[in-house]
Amino acid sequence: MKAPAALEALTAALKRLPGVGAKSAQRFAYYLLQHDREGAALLSRALAEAVERIRHCARCNTFTEHEICDTCSSPRRDAAVLCVVETPSDQLMVEQTLTFNGLYFVLMGRLSPLDGIGPKEIHFDRLLARATDGTVREVILATNFTQEGEATAHYIGELLRARGLKVTRLARGVPVGSELEYVDPGTIAQALRDRRAVQD
Amino acid sequence: MKAPAALEALTAALKRLPGVGAKSAQRFAYYLLQHDREGAALLSRALAEAVERIRHCARCNTFTEHEICDTCSSPRRDAAVLCVVETPSDQLMVEQTLTFNGLYFVLMGRLSPLDGIGPKEIHFDRLLARATDGTVREVILATNFTQEGEATAHYIGELLRARGLKVTRLARGVPVGSELEYVDPGTIAQALRDRRAVQD
Repeated sequence: MKAPAALEALTAALKRLPGVGAKSAQRFAYYLLQHDREGAALLSRALAEAVERIRHCARCNTFTEHEICDTCSSPRRDAAVLCVVETPSDQLMVEQTLTFNGLYFVLMGRLSPLDGIGPKEIHFDRLLARATDGTVREVILATNFTQEGEATAHYIGELLRARGLKVTRLARGVPVGSELEYVDPGTIAQALRDRRAVQD
Repeated sequence: MKAPAALEALTAALKRLPGVGAKSAQRFAYYLLQHDREGAALLSRALAEAVERIRHCARCNTFTEHEICDTCSSPRRDAAVLCVVETPSDQLMVEQTLTFNGLYFVLMGRLSPLDGIGPKEIHFDRLLARATDGTVREVILATNFTQEGEATAHYIGELLRARGLKVTRLARGVPVGSELEYVDPGTIAQALRDRRAVQD
């Protein structure tokens, strides 16, 4: 007995999703065909439309349906400050703070030599051109505080500073709302080193 | 800042997959758009084709592209024995033993009153018609050995036996290759109760 060809093809295609193995792919396929054919048709159309419409912003490299994304083309943003993040999700998190009014550059990754991801893969040449276009005065490095994110920030920071740009990094410290008892010693050490004067 | 509409639509559609939440859906969407657009296009087509082509076999209820599935229309299968399973994956597992040559009925589910899954949802009327069509002599209940699978087997078994059919259930016991030390007591108790005479 063999599964029908269209079912086999669907399972194989679902297996291309990251972290989805043979069993999960089969479960997804059975679920859609048995309980949510409407959802399957919807997903089919959404995939086709996204592939057709979504591209990278020519300025900040994030996902957009236009040549230049909404953020980059907004006249209300401060073009003098450029925040560098790894992914569009990170960009969204910074936006949700409602405290940043500058522009972004989205690396769409992080340096990871072992995975073959070097400066070219994180579009460093485009970032360099963008940061040295004359309008940018400060580059805020907001890559993740993981080993790879830190290495990426270090690499980018060194090269941008060599070109005379002001480069800053998000503050490290104790997360808001957390109890010291449950914070790791490395974070507390960092918070001690970067302690701030209490102001009136 | 808002994510592009086509990206939002894709994330929403991916969230309809079972067990996939907002974060996973976003990860899937970013991954496909950033690293595997070919895979996204492939998945789009596979979904559309599966929705169009896959239906349920008119005899055994499994997924098929035809009116009657390959197994049901094979002249080499023994129509006198009917094996009842919950899903097409279970059917595949039985087939892989290469020891069963009868036909199947796939419930596409199990009784689960709390989830609103009753006899109608597992197509009991069709199973009844199928089992009492004159050719079937034995019905093997191969639903799962979970609480719901056992309840389903019990329900189906009672009603088929009342119609004079021979009804059997897969043997419970110690799995092949396992060590008693790591088998649960309930399984060992069952294996003791169903112990078999050692033959010459």
